[in-house]
Amino acid sequence: MAGVTTVFVFNGPNLNLLGTRKPEVYGTTVLTDVEALCRESAAAHHLELDFRQTNHEGVLVDWIHEAGAAVKRGDAVGLVLNAAAYTHTSVALHDAIEGAELPTVEVHISNVHGRETFRHHSFVSPVAAGIVVGFGVDGYALAIDGLVRKVRPLRAV
Amino acid sequence: MAGVTTVFVFNGPNLNLLGTRKPEVYGTTVLTDVEALCRESAAAHHLELDFRQTNHEGVLVDWIHEAGAAVKRGDAVGLVLNAAAYTHTSVALHDAIEGAELPTVEVHISNVHGRETFRHHSFVSPVAAGIVVGFGVDGYALAIDGLVRKVRPLRAV
Amino acid sequence: MAGVTTVFVFNGPNLNLLGTRKPEVYGTTVLTDVEALCRESAAAHHLELDFRQTNHEGVLVDWIHEAGAAVKRGDAVGLVLNAAAYTHTSVALHDAIEGAELPTVEVHISNVHGRETFRHHSFVSPVAAGIVVGFGVDGYALAIDGLVRKVRPLRAV
Amino acid sequence: MAGVTTVFVFNGPNLNLLGTRKPEVYGTTVLTDVEALCRESAAAHHLELDFRQTNHEGVLVDWIHEAGAAVKRGDAVGLVLNAAAYTHTSVALHDAIEGAELPTVEVHISNVHGRETFRHHSFVSPVAAGIVVGFGVDGYALAIDGLVRKVRPLRAV
Amino acid sequence: MAGVTTVFVFNGPNLNLLGTRKPEVYGTTVLTDVEALCRESAAAHHLELDFRQTNHEGVLVDWIHEAGAAVKRGDAVGLVLNAAAYTHTSVALHDAIEGAELPTVEVHISNVHGRETFRHHSFVSPVAAGIVVGFGVDGYALAIDGLVRKVRPLRAV
Amino acid sequence: MAGVTTVFVFNGPNLNLLGTRKPEVYGTTVLTDVEALCRESAAAHHLELDFRQTNHEGVLVDWIHEAGAAVKRGDAVGLVLNAAAYTHTSVALHDAIEGAELPTVEVHISNVHGRETFRHHSFVSPVAAGIVVGFGVDGYALAIDGLVRKVRPLRAV
Amino acid sequence: MAGVTTVFVFNGPNLNLLGTRKPEVYGTTVLTDVEALCRESAAAHHLELDFRQTNHEGVLVDWIHEAGAAVKRGDAVGLVLNAAAYTHTSVALHDAIEGAELPTVEVHISNVHGRETFRHHSFVSPVAAGIVVGFGVDGYALAIDGLVRKVRPLRAV
Amino acid sequence: MAGVTTVFVFNGPNLNLLGTRKPEVYGTTVLTDVEALCRESAAAHHLELDFRQTNHEGVLVDWIHEAGAAVKRGDAVGLVLNAAAYTHTSVALHDAIEGAELPTVEVHISNVHGRETFRHHSFVSPVAAGIVVGFGVDGYALAIDGLVRKVRPLRAV
Amino acid sequence: MAGVTTVFVFNGPNLNLLGTRKPEVYGTTVLTDVEALCRESAAAHHLELDFRQTNHEGVLVDWIHEAGAAVKRGDAVGLVLNAAAYTHTSVALHDAIEGAELPTVEVHISNVHGRETFRHHSFVSPVAAGIVVGFGVDGYALAIDGLVRKVRPLRAV
Amino acid sequence: MAGVTTVFVFNGPNLNLLGTRKPEVYGTTVLTDVEALCRESAAAHHLELDFRQTNHEGVLVDWIHEAGAAVKRGDAVGLVLNAAAYTHTSVALHDAIEGAELPTVEVHISNVHGRETFRHHSFVSPVAAGIVVGFGVDGYALAIDGLVRKVRPLRAV
Amino acid sequence: MAGVTTVFVFNGPNLNLLGTRKPEVYGTTVLTDVEALCRESAAAHHLELDFRQTNHEGVLVDWIHEAGAAVKRGDAVGLVLNAAAYTHTSVALHDAIEGAELPTVEVHISNVHGRETFRHHSFVSPVAAGIVVGFGVDGYALAIDGLVRKVRPLRAV
Amino acid sequence: MAGVTTVFVFNGPNLNLLGTRKPEVYGTTVLTDVEALCRESAAAHHLELDFRQTNHEGVLVDWIHEAGAAVKRGDAVGLVLNAAAYTHTSVALHDAIEGAELPTVEVHISNVHGRETFRHHSFVSPVAAGIVVGFGVDGYALAIDGLVRKVRPLRAV
Repeated sequence: MAGVTTVFVFNGPNLNLLGTRKPEVYGTTVLTDVEALCRESAAAHHLELDFRQTNHEGVLVDWIHEAGAAVKRGDAVGLVLNAAAYTHTSVALHDAIEGAELPTVEVHISNVHGRETFRHHSFVSPVAAGIVVGFGVDGYALAIDGLVRKVRPLRAV
Repeated sequence: MAGVTTVFVFNGPNLNLLGTRKPEVYGTTVLTDVEALCRESAAAHHLELDFRQTNHEGVLVDWIHEAGAAVKRGDAVGLVLNAAAYTHTSVALHDAIEGAELPTVEVHISNVHGRETFRHHSFVSPVAAGIVVGFGVDGYALAIDGLVRKVRPLRAV
Repeated sequence: MAGVTTVFVFNGPNLNLLGTRKPEVYGTTVLTDVEALCRESAAAHHLELDFRQTNHEGVLVDWIHEAGAAVKRGDAVGLVLNAAAYTHTSVALHDAIEGAELPTVEVHISNVHGRETFRHHSFVSPVAAGIVVGFGVDGYALAIDGLVRKVRPLRAV
Repeated sequence: MAGVTTVFVFNGPNLNLLGTRKPEVYGTTVLTDVEALCRESAAAHHLELDFRQTNHEGVLVDWIHEAGAAVKRGDAVGLVLNAAAYTHTSVALHDAIEGAELPTVEVHISNVHGRETFRHHSFVSPVAAGIVVGFGVDGYALAIDGLVRKVRPLRAV
Repeated sequence: MAGVTTVFVFNGPNLNLLGTRKPEVYGTTVLTDVEALCRESAAAHHLELDFRQTNHEGVLVDWIHEAGAAVKRGDAVGLVLNAAAYTHTSVALHDAIEGAELPTVEVHISNVHGRETFRHHSFVSPVAAGIVVGFGVDGYALAIDGLVRKVRPLRAV
Repeated sequence: MAGVTTVFVFNGPNLNLLGTRKPEVYGTTVLTDVEALCRESAAAHHLELDFRQTNHEGVLVDWIHEAGAAVKRGDAVGLVLNAAAYTHTSVALHDAIEGAELPTVEVHISNVHGRETFRHHSFVSPVAAGIVVGFGVDGYALAIDGLVRKVRPLRAV
Repeated sequence: MAGVTTVFVFNGPNLNLLGTRKPEVYGTTVLTDVEALCRESAAAHHLELDFRQTNHEGVLVDWIHEAGAAVKRGDAVGLVLNAAAYTHTSVALHDAIEGAELPTVEVHISNVHGRETFRHHSFVSPVAAGIVVGFGVDGYALAIDGLVRKVRPLRAV
Repeated sequence: MAGVTTVFVFNGPNLNLLGTRKPEVYGTTVLTDVEALCRESAAAHHLELDFRQTNHEGVLVDWIHEAGAAVKRGDAVGLVLNAAAYTHTSVALHDAIEGAELPTVEVHISNVHGRETFRHHSFVSPVAAGIVVGFGVDGYALAIDGLVRKVRPLRAV
Repeated sequence: MAGVTTVFVFNGPNLNLLGTRKPEVYGTTVLTDVEALCRESAAAHHLELDFRQTNHEGVLVDWIHEAGAAVKRGDAVGLVLNAAAYTHTSVALHDAIEGAELPTVEVHISNVHGRETFRHHSFVSPVAAGIVVGFGVDGYALAIDGLVRKVRPLRAV
Repeated sequence: MAGVTTVFVFNGPNLNLLGTRKPEVYGTTVLTDVEALCRESAAAHHLELDFRQTNHEGVLVDWIHEAGAAVKRGDAVGLVLNAAAYTHTSVALHDAIEGAELPTVEVHISNVHGRETFRHHSFVSPVAAGIVVGFGVDGYALAIDGLVRKVRPLRAV
Repeated sequence: MAGVTTVFVFNGPNLNLLGTRKPEVYGTTVLTDVEALCRESAAAHHLELDFRQTNHEGVLVDWIHEAGAAVKRGDAVGLVLNAAAYTHTSVALHDAIEGAELPTVEVHISNVHGRETFRHHSFVSPVAAGIVVGFGVDGYALAIDGLVRKVRPLRAV
Repeated sequence: MAGVTTVFVFNGPNLNLLGTRKPEVYGTTVLTDVEALCRESAAAHHLELDFRQTNHEGVLVDWIHEAGAAVKRGDAVGLVLNAAAYTHTSVALHDAIEGAELPTVEVHISNVHGRETFRHHSFVSPVAAGIVVGFGVDGYALAIDGLVRKVRPLRAV
């Protein structure tokens, strides 16, 4: 921990379209704006940001393993995860978070409970350290704050 | 708004037992500790705190009407609500929040999605401005932050 | 019955917000307008009106017992009940109406069958003497008429 | 509207047996008694009555189209419909009422919510202008009153 | 009963295709063969046969009313009904049999319990005097026998 | 088949109480009356009767194996089975009938479709050669007739 | 086949209202426009068109039998069927298509999967030769093309 | 424990109507009779009785907290709870009993498993120390006996 | 009744393992201890005890018939039944108790409502005279007391 | 649009096995045959074809984004998508089509409604511009025709 | 353990018919062949075989208790159980295995997941030490191997 | 088959974490230990081992196609598949195994039937040649043995 400590923010499928799609639900902010917002939040906690997006479930699983290893090495504090559509269908993500023993905060931009029924169930929630839903992109900042509050009692910076 | 602006924090049934019950789920913090934490958070946003607890569903409905009226008068920014058991059974709370047009952040101390099935559904969520779950009592602070981020663009302080 | 005979009209949670909430669903009439409309209807049947509203399920139960006793004494003809949200969740109201043997007409302002699924079931309906749904506030007048048609064969005025 | 304005009352399958069947549920009134009651109610609103019964779902659909056309021409105020068994099984009736844009009040003689489960769902309700249940044959009169209250604000007599 | 007493046998939709369709399920007997078989069975009980087929649900309802009236007049013993597809969807048939107070034996040629799930439920069964399933066209003869056994204790021939 | 050919009639749990229990459902006939009725029916088809009752599911399975062997040897035509309560719960009976390739007619004295929901499903029906329901004890005679009609085309007497 | 070969297009309940109802779902084309479009499509395949509409389920069944007989005689290629509301409720249509062994293409003007849940299931689909959904009235032309592609390998023109 | 030790008996909604309602289900004993019976039972165990009734869910929650505190102080042995209608709908009661760590015996006068389906589930049962159902008002005495047997091994009298 | 009156206590499958299995759920008492406890309870009511255990569903049915006959002869007061696993699967037990018209108190040692879902439903409960759950082996004593309270008003000792 | 306009055809998992698998369901045509058929259809509409297959859900999502961008640039008319197994499980595909605002026609070679239940639901259907099912590989040609009919009114070629 | 150690193989209902029934599902091997195969497998592990079959659920429970006692005495290694039909319906078997603390490998000859839905659930699986499905009678040999691998680390031979 | 014959063993998502995760469920063996165990098992059958792991569903589908082709060429005997999380969600795996006509033994290390409900259903099982569950990593060896027993009768070595 002599070096820099990282917070991971992983984004799932279709979030690369953010700001171009259903602005009445997600607003007009694009994903690089979210990255900037997260970087600012991370910096306020003296953390590096590792921000990524993929449309592939398997890649998310790979990355979660990578993040879990970083946390075990003491190089990272944990993960903020917006798994988007895979939230609702992926047992593999559930098992990856549980298996990697990675402190994970689940975040959703929109209020999923006000949308289609198939978005009401999350395979991520039962293994999440915390859940933040419906605050728009501000939810990422709240999630980073929440993650730090969760893990800081266990580690000095 | 010449005077002081308030943030309401309402707590539902059995939360008066906080810290005496199931410490492995809720920790040992008691409700006055939560109130102190909230007051600190509110102060950081230059807000007054109105913090209450009741075991009565009807009282929660009454208070939500009162809070809605305060927001309409410009005397308050909104509500952080931990409706506890009534979260899962009360259509009346759903209608009260919707009817009072009261910006409301739903908060739960424990990760309800890792507990009994009957705690997985919330009547509050569909009408919530945001949802914060599983961060322990720190969730109240995140909820106040989230509420302010939601409503401040609409009002100067 | 030497004195005056009463018709009770009880209103459940959030109906005190009537006219301030979702006007596209409920219209702009406020609850005192409804009371006036009911008083006019009651008068046309030579009945006194006892019109009340509460947000508390337990208070509704208490009032139903009171109304049942009045009917048994011959001081009242029965009840028009808009239990609002408690319609869908309250076994206690079901048992109160059944236990008090109180002729009760269930009324809903909006067409609950065109709204959320959780509003399609009513615990009041199986013990109701009649049901009036979707006529707006005019439904109260129809309900009073219907109640009188139900009970008058059994009693002279 | 120089001529006479009509209110339609259509009755579905088996209602021709009224008064001969399950008198403890439906009473002893026969269908011509209901017609007389409706004619009286219609007359009180200065309306002609067009009262019919059929056991055929398709005929009900045809008649609803005919009634919808009459309303469009200004020759009728709307429909009181007791679709009986087809209430619970007919998507065609749902679509006919919606397609013909015909103001329709659904009526049931008995309290269907106290009978078999398959009578608790209605395909008519979501497209009904109002619903009257459980008042016996008096429900027809209430339904005509309710229909007139619904449509009269939109038309002079 | 001075004249002849009748047994009705009514057949529902698509039974006019019998013997031309799915012979591995229904065999190759055509409907006039079934009529001959039934006439023979009826004759053995000194009964006239009134054998009909229709594809219209409403016509079945009309005929059931007609048969019910004949039984009330003492001109018939009851009905053998193969409602085919309407068995599974028609509340109207259920109500017609119940309303006409017509002794009715339900018959199915094939074993409906070994076919699609939607054929496992019958709206006719709860109001049937008896049910005969899976004996091929011989089931009609068994049904007539069963009907006579049911009703003869109540009437001399 | 030089010797005598048998028809088996097996009765399941609690049928030894017949005539002493719920006479409004099952009538007052006792099981030996049913045996006599069956013997008469069997005799009319020149068949011996083997009539038994047991309260044990395993004994029914044993007997079905025995009956299946008799049919294979040409010593019996098949089985009439009233499995009573085991009808609704026994996969073992389903497999026994299927495994023994035993022509089996299922019979129920009362109309099970008008009773509790758990009596609406039968594990016997999908493997039955025919089903007779609701004719009282006369159903046994109809079942023997139906069984003979089923199997006689396959064997001379 | 010396004479003319026909393609049948049958339309179910309420389609006579097409173009007058819910134009945002079905557009403004009326049914005679659809007939013209179909005639043009049929002509391109050197086929006669037999285009009909009814609100009666039983009439659809009768027509399907008639069309099946025409196909068997070699006078027709098959059926394009928009059964509208009966799609979702009619086992009789399912059995008619299966029984008449009639090549049938199911067509829906709107995307039924984006509408009410009760429109998501079709009794026609399991026995359809093909299904075309959501292309507006152009779907009829696609359905005729698809039907011809299905059946032409089996027959010369 | 130098002073007197108490047993609490709390009664939920509509039990104040006991003896006036559905005597075929609950008998004619009124609630003061039950109190007398309980006092006698308590006395036999050298216990004081604290017997209450309320129609308010929130009041039950408050009282359970009060009783839990009394048990913690050594002033009481536990609670006999007939939550009536709230049994089936109240997560708040579930949490109150669990949170107050109050030994609670659930009692129902009638056999709830022979009544409506919505009475078959209890939110109290999973946190109850014991359950007594269907013995009429005698169940209160059995419940007090059972409670004492449960808690006495842990405490001398 | 000149001789001795008996109370039956029947135990179902695996209860012979009591005290050797899952002591954290059932305690360490063995079945002969339970018998001794029951004998003491029976003696307090001047009753003989007939205490049995079997792993066979059919044997339980046979015994229930035997016990029912004893009650009819006036030689017994009724049955305390712990049907263990068969509680949740046996329609045959349901029918046996109902058919033998045997006053039966259902008892469970552990709180079945806090265990697997398949233990939440009981086929015995709807026909039980009373139910005692979760008091450990003391429940047998409560059940005997409750049975006597139920039946003694109907018989002198 | 000065250059060439494209139609995309994307194929999901296991379609590379086409013609080698379950020929009784899918026929013997291989995927390059389908590509040739599509190219011919596209050419008839003066469109280029971009035909692909992948077994990876994430790759399908990537491709849909790419196709959506092409449509926005005016370089393509839309997509024909046979998502195969992912049709039934992928919320990510649903969101990709909706997010990319890509006109998409869903196609299935076999009649999925006649196969396993888990193939009856499609996450693609609610966001599809049209659906073509069960025409074998000819469905691709119909889908291209249907897509062009959908989008051509909005664009000249 | 000075003497011989045993492995038990118990077979449930209808397995005595093996080889005579549904050979396309189970093959033509008879049960004595299975016994021989098991004896060979057991011998390879220096184990005695105790191989049995019964059609009685209660006998299986008795035998499991007997086997559990043998394991506790060190005379046996455990059980291979093909409970056949009782697999899907018997809570008693579940409790017997759990109560006897008997290492049990569940085996099925056919692939139960490719057959009727009611064969997809097993009450044995949750308490099984291992499960072997679908290998035909070879599954018995695999099950014995698997059982030995499970229990040998705990015991020397 | 002149060269070497292969057995494939494919492992799905998160199995690369084996031995580092939930040791109380999966033990401490790591995946290279499993590979060694499998190599030893394969060698005992004179088979080469091709052992792989991936977190990507699409990669599993690709590999299954590759393995199916190897089996068709006679270069391999089949597949042992531990699809882990994708077992429960992947229709694509189901179709891949079925389409590639690849003999596949499904294996799970832990007893999935004793864990979360969403692990009780497998899309792999209906197309598996055999299933081995709950034997820990020894299950891989049993699966290879079972696979060889399945396929060797069809091929010499």
